[in-house]
Amino acid sequence: MPDKLMRLRRSESVPEPSRPVMVAIAGDSAAGKTTLTRGIADALGADRATALCVDDYHRYDRVERRSVPFTVLNPECNYMDVLEQHLQLLALGRPILKPVYDHATGQLVRPVLVEPREFVIVEGLLPLHTKLSRACFDIAVYLDPAEDIRREWKLKRDCAERGYTRDQVLAELERREPESAAFIRPQRQQADISVRFAPVAGHSVPDGAQLSAEILLRPTIQHPDLSHVLTDDDRRTVHLKLIRDSDGRPVDALHVHGHAPREDSRIVEKAIWEQLSFAPDAALPDKLGEFAPGNRSEPLAIAQLLLLWHLLEARR
Amino acid sequence: MPDKLMRLRRSESVPEPSRPVMVAIAGDSAAGKTTLTRGIADALGADRATALCVDDYHRYDRVERRSVPFTVLNPECNYMDVLEQHLQLLALGRPILKPVYDHATGQLVRPVLVEPREFVIVEGLLPLHTKLSRACFDIAVYLDPAEDIRREWKLKRDCAERGYTRDQVLAELERREPESAAFIRPQRQQADISVRFAPVAGHSVPDGAQLSAEILLRPTIQHPDLSHVLTDDDRRTVHLKLIRDSDGRPVDALHVHGHAPREDSRIVEKAIWEQLSFAPDAALPDKLGEFAPGNRSEPLAIAQLLLLWHLLEARR
Repeated sequence: MPDKLMRLRRSESVPEPSRPVMVAIAGDSAAGKTTLTRGIADALGADRATALCVDDYHRYDRVERRSVPFTVLNPECNYMDVLEQHLQLLALGRPILKPVYDHATGQLVRPVLVEPREFVIVEGLLPLHTKLSRACFDIAVYLDPAEDIRREWKLKRDCAERGYTRDQVLAELERREPESAAFIRPQRQQADISVRFAPVAGHSVPDGAQLSAEILLRPTIQHPDLSHVLTDDDRRTVHLKLIRDSDGRPVDALHVHGHAPREDSRIVEKAIWEQLSFAPDAALPDKLGEFAPGNRSEPLAIAQLLLLWHLLEARR
Repeated sequence: MPDKLMRLRRSESVPEPSRPVMVAIAGDSAAGKTTLTRGIADALGADRATALCVDDYHRYDRVERRSVPFTVLNPECNYMDVLEQHLQLLALGRPILKPVYDHATGQLVRPVLVEPREFVIVEGLLPLHTKLSRACFDIAVYLDPAEDIRREWKLKRDCAERGYTRDQVLAELERREPESAAFIRPQRQQADISVRFAPVAGHSVPDGAQLSAEILLRPTIQHPDLSHVLTDDDRRTVHLKLIRDSDGRPVDALHVHGHAPREDSRIVEKAIWEQLSFAPDAALPDKLGEFAPGNRSEPLAIAQLLLLWHLLEARR
């Protein structure tokens, strides 16, 4: 009975849980979402951060998908209304019973309880697809690696970890391309921060440590002010440039060169960290940037630190 | 971002779905919940009514339950907070992704989408256990058959349909008894309508057609006025009596004798139906009361008709 229910919800007998800071990390398959997420979640600690992947809201399992005319990238293939609902519940500090898709068997299996802690990091293919889901996030990030790089990453991962052949992965990339263009990539324009990893000119087959990053900081949210330490005249391997994005909107582009020495990235890291308004003396997290055991990327470290800054700042 | 989210939810861009009428049918295992539910759902039609069982919110599957110190009747054994959440969502007209427990295997499996239609009939062991879940219902019903009858029904069903032996069912009834007393039976006091099926004196092993019913109508909601057609002086097999319930509260008790002839029950059915304020000429549903193919119970028919009256009246 909604009247009774509304009265009860307004009354003290149903205490409102505290609301977490919500960040979305959207991007295509193998764009680096999990690597970015893991670094931030580890820096915050398991008792403060809940990380979840929202690619399990499939309407159909693998067998059923053979008779539908779209891939999992298509919103039609997913319970987008339930995803919206669950994001709203998490944003309000409430638990969800999240569906689970088993990549090994291609089946939908027993759901899991997810309880939001202080920070909720939501990664997935489509978390920024609808207006209502976007409204659930304090910070929206899109991962936008150069397409060649992403294909390399997907080939490497799906062959090594998911048991596919190189030809199978290439065919799947082909099959998904139209829906990737229609549903995944438009989310880039909806993000407050867009991170593009790309090879440095002259390195045709780079490994992760040699990739440069262009981190677009849109004025849709308040970013740390870096203009006093970095300018586009700067000769260092890290610099900041005011540009127009492909849609004409003004945006700050933070370039981090793939060969940036630790000293250069330190300057930016300290500049970001010292602008944490509530804790100027907080120790700078030092384990960021790892993309594989023992392998560090300065561009990744800076992207992660920026996100940490936003999460902690939103917590105030 | 709750601010952004709240603004969006208040704005027109997120249309509020229409809210269904919600009825709870609570009761112990094999109390007759499904039989009662099916009759009402059929009378309303599949396009108007959504019927669901909420006994799937288990925290543990059958194997895991071997190492926990309670049965499925215990709220500790269930995600009661998620059940509350899902009932609220349904009451607001929103879909849920409902967990599913497979009775055959004892496993938690792929959840199903449940979309509320005009009427939502929720049956289960514990839908009236918490204050918040109770607030979600327009009408709360508790099924309270005489314990001997319920045990007979459970033995018959679990042996025939769930593959248990008579001894296994008896042992399970024994094991569940303390939690039944602690968590299931207290819901009777929370119900607007409580239905007790019991044998007519002198019939020791009755089948369903010979059971009488006592239907308690609590003044917590507005019931159809039957006092002008029935009194406790009445010599007919259906009569109404003002009594005190076991807790001292005044309540109307509608008695329907197991051998009530169709003519007697017709009087009550017509009296109920003619009080439908918005549709005095609506045809009286005539397929109510069936508890097994070809087997009809007048007490069951009257209980179902009463519920139909409440559902339709709440819809106005």
